[in-house]
Amino acid sequence: MSRMSVRNWISSIADRGRELLDLPLSAPQDPFMRLATLCHDLVSQKGEARGTALAREVVRGWEDLAESEHLRFFNIMQNEFSADRIAVIEAAEAYKADPTESNLATLTQASEPARQELLRRINMAPGGTRAIVDMRNSLLNALKENRHLEPLNADMQHLLTSWFNRGFLELRHIDWETSASILEKLIRYEAVHEIQGWDDLRRRLADDRKCFAFFHPAMPDDPLIFVEVALVHGLADSVQALLAPEIDETAQSRANTAIFYSISNCQTGLRGISFGNFLIKQVVEELKREFPKLEQFATLSPIPGFMGWLRTRQKSDTDDAKQAAEILKAMEDDSWVNDAARAEALKKNAMQLCARYLAHAKRGKAPMDPTARFHLGNGARLERLNWMGDISTKGLRQSGGIMVNYAYHLNDIERNHESLVNDGKIALSRAVSQLAGNQG
Amino acid sequence: MSRMSVRNWISSIADRGRELLDLPLSAPQDPFMRLATLCHDLVSQKGEARGTALAREVVRGWEDLAESEHLRFFNIMQNEFSADRIAVIEAAEAYKADPTESNLATLTQASEPARQELLRRINMAPGGTRAIVDMRNSLLNALKENRHLEPLNADMQHLLTSWFNRGFLELRHIDWETSASILEKLIRYEAVHEIQGWDDLRRRLADDRKCFAFFHPAMPDDPLIFVEVALVHGLADSVQALLAPEIDETAQSRANTAIFYSISNCQTGLRGISFGNFLIKQVVEELKREFPKLEQFATLSPIPGFMGWLRTRQKSDTDDAKQAAEILKAMEDDSWVNDAARAEALKKNAMQLCARYLAHAKRGKAPMDPTARFHLGNGARLERLNWMGDISTKGLRQSGGIMVNYAYHLNDIERNHESLVNDGKIALSRAVSQLAGNQG
Amino acid sequence: MSRMSVRNWISSIADRGRELLDLPLSAPQDPFMRLATLCHDLVSQKGEARGTALAREVVRGWEDLAESEHLRFFNIMQNEFSADRIAVIEAAEAYKADPTESNLATLTQASEPARQELLRRINMAPGGTRAIVDMRNSLLNALKENRHLEPLNADMQHLLTSWFNRGFLELRHIDWETSASILEKLIRYEAVHEIQGWDDLRRRLADDRKCFAFFHPAMPDDPLIFVEVALVHGLADSVQALLAPEIDETAQSRANTAIFYSISNCQTGLRGISFGNFLIKQVVEELKREFPKLEQFATLSPIPGFMGWLRTRQKSDTDDAKQAAEILKAMEDDSWVNDAARAEALKKNAMQLCARYLAHAKRGKAPMDPTARFHLGNGARLERLNWMGDISTKGLRQSGGIMVNYAYHLNDIERNHESLVNDGKIALSRAVSQLAGNQG
Amino acid sequence: MSRMSVRNWISSIADRGRELLDLPLSAPQDPFMRLATLCHDLVSQKGEARGTALAREVVRGWEDLAESEHLRFFNIMQNEFSADRIAVIEAAEAYKADPTESNLATLTQASEPARQELLRRINMAPGGTRAIVDMRNSLLNALKENRHLEPLNADMQHLLTSWFNRGFLELRHIDWETSASILEKLIRYEAVHEIQGWDDLRRRLADDRKCFAFFHPAMPDDPLIFVEVALVHGLADSVQALLAPEIDETAQSRANTAIFYSISNCQTGLRGISFGNFLIKQVVEELKREFPKLEQFATLSPIPGFMGWLRTRQKSDTDDAKQAAEILKAMEDDSWVNDAARAEALKKNAMQLCARYLAHAKRGKAPMDPTARFHLGNGARLERLNWMGDISTKGLRQSGGIMVNYAYHLNDIERNHESLVNDGKIALSRAVSQLAGNQG
Repeated sequence: MSRMSVRNWISSIADRGRELLDLPLSAPQDPFMRLATLCHDLVSQKGEARGTALAREVVRGWEDLAESEHLRFFNIMQNEFSADRIAVIEAAEAYKADPTESNLATLTQASEPARQELLRRINMAPGGTRAIVDMRNSLLNALKENRHLEPLNADMQHLLTSWFNRGFLELRHIDWETSASILEKLIRYEAVHEIQGWDDLRRRLADDRKCFAFFHPAMPDDPLIFVEVALVHGLADSVQALLAPEIDETAQSRANTAIFYSISNCQTGLRGISFGNFLIKQVVEELKREFPKLEQFATLSPIPGFMGWLRTRQKSDTDDAKQAAEILKAMEDDSWVNDAARAEALKKNAMQLCARYLAHAKRGKAPMDPTARFHLGNGARLERLNWMGDISTKGLRQSGGIMVNYAYHLNDIERNHESLVNDGKIALSRAVSQLAGNQG
Repeated sequence: MSRMSVRNWISSIADRGRELLDLPLSAPQDPFMRLATLCHDLVSQKGEARGTALAREVVRGWEDLAESEHLRFFNIMQNEFSADRIAVIEAAEAYKADPTESNLATLTQASEPARQELLRRINMAPGGTRAIVDMRNSLLNALKENRHLEPLNADMQHLLTSWFNRGFLELRHIDWETSASILEKLIRYEAVHEIQGWDDLRRRLADDRKCFAFFHPAMPDDPLIFVEVALVHGLADSVQALLAPEIDETAQSRANTAIFYSISNCQTGLRGISFGNFLIKQVVEELKREFPKLEQFATLSPIPGFMGWLRTRQKSDTDDAKQAAEILKAMEDDSWVNDAARAEALKKNAMQLCARYLAHAKRGKAPMDPTARFHLGNGARLERLNWMGDISTKGLRQSGGIMVNYAYHLNDIERNHESLVNDGKIALSRAVSQLAGNQG
Repeated sequence: MSRMSVRNWISSIADRGRELLDLPLSAPQDPFMRLATLCHDLVSQKGEARGTALAREVVRGWEDLAESEHLRFFNIMQNEFSADRIAVIEAAEAYKADPTESNLATLTQASEPARQELLRRINMAPGGTRAIVDMRNSLLNALKENRHLEPLNADMQHLLTSWFNRGFLELRHIDWETSASILEKLIRYEAVHEIQGWDDLRRRLADDRKCFAFFHPAMPDDPLIFVEVALVHGLADSVQALLAPEIDETAQSRANTAIFYSISNCQTGLRGISFGNFLIKQVVEELKREFPKLEQFATLSPIPGFMGWLRTRQKSDTDDAKQAAEILKAMEDDSWVNDAARAEALKKNAMQLCARYLAHAKRGKAPMDPTARFHLGNGARLERLNWMGDISTKGLRQSGGIMVNYAYHLNDIERNHESLVNDGKIALSRAVSQLAGNQG
Repeated sequence: MSRMSVRNWISSIADRGRELLDLPLSAPQDPFMRLATLCHDLVSQKGEARGTALAREVVRGWEDLAESEHLRFFNIMQNEFSADRIAVIEAAEAYKADPTESNLATLTQASEPARQELLRRINMAPGGTRAIVDMRNSLLNALKENRHLEPLNADMQHLLTSWFNRGFLELRHIDWETSASILEKLIRYEAVHEIQGWDDLRRRLADDRKCFAFFHPAMPDDPLIFVEVALVHGLADSVQALLAPEIDETAQSRANTAIFYSISNCQTGLRGISFGNFLIKQVVEELKREFPKLEQFATLSPIPGFMGWLRTRQKSDTDDAKQAAEILKAMEDDSWVNDAARAEALKKNAMQLCARYLAHAKRGKAPMDPTARFHLGNGARLERLNWMGDISTKGLRQSGGIMVNYAYHLNDIERNHESLVNDGKIALSRAVSQLAGNQG
């Protein structure tokens, strides 16, 4: 079945769709049926003839659709915009009999569901990309209770991955000269250390701080992901110090270290499409170029899974169980933070177990902690643990107040990544290695 | 087979590829083997770890590859970056047994050849999109004698179609304020009426002329397609008049008609991905907004297949044969152009046959003439034939000196397009219809 | 004395200056003496040779100068950078004897104080314009107790007027896409109705509000003046309604009136250089073009001098005295605002006297009220008084809670302006005219 | 007389002007009288009221004025827009009696002719600056036979100098990405080595060439001055080599020297306002920053006065007379250029006299040669003479085929400039000094 015949078939389902929908069309006031019809038209010849006009109407139809109708719409997208079963099976038989590249190509085309073409055509409209990202956002919500929509999700993710290819993204430096429209999105999307308002934001955009974001040309005012960086002297060990409102005027000139202290995804509709690793690596290169004095690039990161792991651990029959229980008891409320003696008493045990958690707790070959998984998976090295590095309520609840530095040495990234993926080996500094001990 | 397992498999072929290639690696000076190895690395874990760096090396490797090695490289892309045959067949069997959307999704993914992922990863590099467009350009050349590469071509076209989606394109007004770097590309790419140099270009960018082009954000200095428009009073009937160096200062203010007199694709590597219909329709809307006095939007187009058709026709046993022979004889050399009497004598016959050719000569349901096919397929109407509308050598050789106006009435576009596609019915003005007669 | 000889003379005073200053130069650590010397150098040959480098040092010297030294510096600018007395007198004698244009030119040049050239040369530095505006700002403060510096002020104002010529200013539309750096300046500079923070600002930049500012190319991030406009239906009568946080989504589409509800100068250093009249007129034109449905352009303005005038009036022996006293007594505290009956009782008297104040109270031929002076001087017409138009504390203290609309009819502007300037005749609507009565 | 009274007086002359002009107004079709009236209105109250609208009409009036009427218009500007004689004389008397700064300020203001205010107000219009530059251009032509217009010229130059202050200019890098509209102006304005067309221009904008220009914000598409630079290895000695179409791909990377081979003023209306010295110095700084390997910055310049000086010299009774006569005879036609022996025979004498001309021929303290005067006045050093450095016809006619390098060492610029201005001492390299001999 050639591409042409795929097209013809798309037109034919569109026509079938129209017939099915003809009745409801007598009630043109129903925005849902109108949208479904427009989608069928869009993948038909009408779509070819009327160009972007029809796509625009679909986008508007989607925007006007009540949220309560989204699920119904997703079911239509999945069920009415599938592939031609007969054509798929014929192509598969042909390939099985003679697995040539040519037969494979026929099968590849035949097995592509019509909803991919539908999405590509929606994307022709101004605002189409934005609409599809929004659709996926809604679909991800719906998925929780409607696992059967996974194929539609796979198609959306497939297309979005292709469209939000690294090569199409634009890295922009964000500062106080950036538009308020974009800056307010930073305030809204900051996921790690909440931005308290415009004054807090302004401090994070002062001369000794840097912020970078990726943008896609089809959504020029919507950051996809952004990272906040502090230029400091030596590895930072406390996020509260970094976020303090005072600006050390001399800091930038003395800085030899760039600390990535927050990285936030902005578009839930793009979940599963990874930008973070590209962003960090490109920002390292940008900063190196602009500030040749920088010698070290590292994060100051939470350990979001640590306290949860401790709770599991205390119930286990490992050697750690008693230690874990003691720590959890001591941290039951947050008062220890203001009691130097109690804090000091806790430190050794807590740091040790945290190091063990990061160095040894795994999900498959990958680290169990999600932040560790991200940075170590990118090829970073677990450099240092910082006691009382984040004494905010959130920091205490999740990470026992500890923060960790992951260091990015561009030269080691590939080796670290491969060791992890192939052998499950985590790159550790000597200090962390010692703290984690040798047992598992 | 989940997307994850596809990835693993990609890594495994990459590793296999490496083994196969290990020997030649002992000769690291061979740029071809180096490029092949880099491609295998790129789709493997290394590609994930090293992000855009590896993609950049592949792009450079491609750029440095001798043209004589291109074919060899395309063969590797097609043969070493296919799909996992076993996985494809298993997925196909599962779908055949139970044609659920979920099984379809597995099959869709399994049957996607690894070269698609390879291309997506090459695209991560700065300049990656440009490199892939260049690859396709070279592949299209190679295809002529290597039809077996059609599957690779299908994959490239599939991805490029998705990436050069209308929604990602930017329409730009081109004028004398545009950079010389872009303007010189217009001179180079103009395909219909050659631009004679900077003075000629400047005239085509004067106040009573407009030029618009589509650009893609990943190739911001490379127009994809551009259209040249003349603002005139009444339908233009001669391209020589339009291209004359004199500027009628009052023309713009009196203009009620926009004549699209040239539309040129710039990137042969994007052949088969259609921009022209979107461009014309959007330019019509732009012009309407900017010049509310415009009432009519039409082309002034060649009839590139007319003289060739006449030559076939004279050998046919149709009623036209004699007429065709007479015309061909009279036009044997170009001297008739300067002889009013001979020109007048020719006119009636030539116009009549030309109208018949345009109105009745078909390839399937579509018009035989390629320019007619494009504009009528877009939903335009065949409005008028213009005797001696293009008396350049090229105009005489191809079109017998005749030019035609295709009119774009936005309201009729959809109906015209559907009548053509469904019923093979060509939209004609009354005048052309009469000229073409009623017989076939 | 030719321009060349003026230059030579400047050099000679620079050299004299240097001699005078040579002693203190032995203490190069004194930033004040260093700045004075740099200024002398700048108007000398050194200034010509070293181009902008020296100007840059003067700018830096000024920026580093303690505020307590400003007055001393201004005295030096005035006294050491004057004109050549002998040359002036000679040129004046020559002109008196023979008042040719040529002799006038010599006198014009001779009588220009060297500080004008000094300022022009400071202006060559990057940031020079900004520095001079800051200087003038400081000078205006100093002037209050140092009237003798008026000549220096006249020179600064003369140059700044020439440099901030309307033709060099750029009108920019300010909205939520504008940089935070500029927006925070709006918050800081708003002089009429204080902006309460970013949320308030955002509301003022919503779709049914417009904001425009003038910028100078040498200070691209510093607005000079800005105006805030509300698009509404019918003349607005209450500023509290305009500033309310709720947005009427349909307002913009229904709007037939543009209300200028706030206009703020941003640079005190540019006092006396008028931008406001240009700004309002150009914004009227911009809005007309963008929103052809707008029929009416008017302000909603305070009457800042009204309550003060009432206090004078109650002590006068005019017929108004008793009325004024009653109003003042009733408005002694602000509780009447919340008491409909008392407010109603006050209304007639207060509105009448306010109308009389605006229509008849004069300073020379000009209206006594400063806001009235500005708008009526621009050619606007006093259109309507609005009872309880501004019930903020400030509104009550200054304007008795009343606000007024000045209407801008572009066609009447010239006539209104001339009637006012020549005959002291204020343009009034019929309603205001009746309210103000016929007596004076 | 306060600034206010100046204004009143301006209004009064405007009114007088109107009376005088009232008669011709009965012939409103006379564009000249209309323009004169508009000018009077513009400096009157009408100008204040109608803002930029009136200024716009004056600009249009000027643009429409026949060239043959320019002189008449300049006479009106000079005669009808003077100062108030009585007020000037009173102010002068007051100053003479009591030369305070305050009395000086009054005199400064009184003696400023009304035409300065007229020009400032014309400048309020869009395109006003451009119009005034054009006026000055025309005035400079008229001046040749109308020396009495010098005062008007002085006023224009005075204002333009203030407006085209270095601080307001923008340096832009010109390359192939620049708009065709600006590039064609480079072709038109190149004054030193004619640009032969777009291909020649493109070569001058290749990677091993740089071009920079100053722009003023009020004339954003019109370069004021531009300089062309070649990046080469070692001091360039031949302009034909620099202009050759071949590009040495490796040149930029090996370059240690920036050669300024052409500098052209674009706006004759700005004659006498110097940009060149600022431009060269800023470009030196730009290039240093971008290409840290550059060690040397020098020109490759013609000696436009050399051959003329030789002709004078041969008639003098100096020791050079005979030598000069011989050179002139040998260079009578250009054939020697192609005859190595004759060229060699000429070389010693010609180089020696040329060195003497540059090192010793003076006009006052300044070098006689205009190009030498410019560069040496800027503080450059006469570095080297290059035999047969420019063998174009123009090069042979003016400079005897010799070219010279002036070197810019930023550190020596001030000292060189001062030595020249104070002592008439020209900075020479040792080699040139020897060549020039010790006698005068």
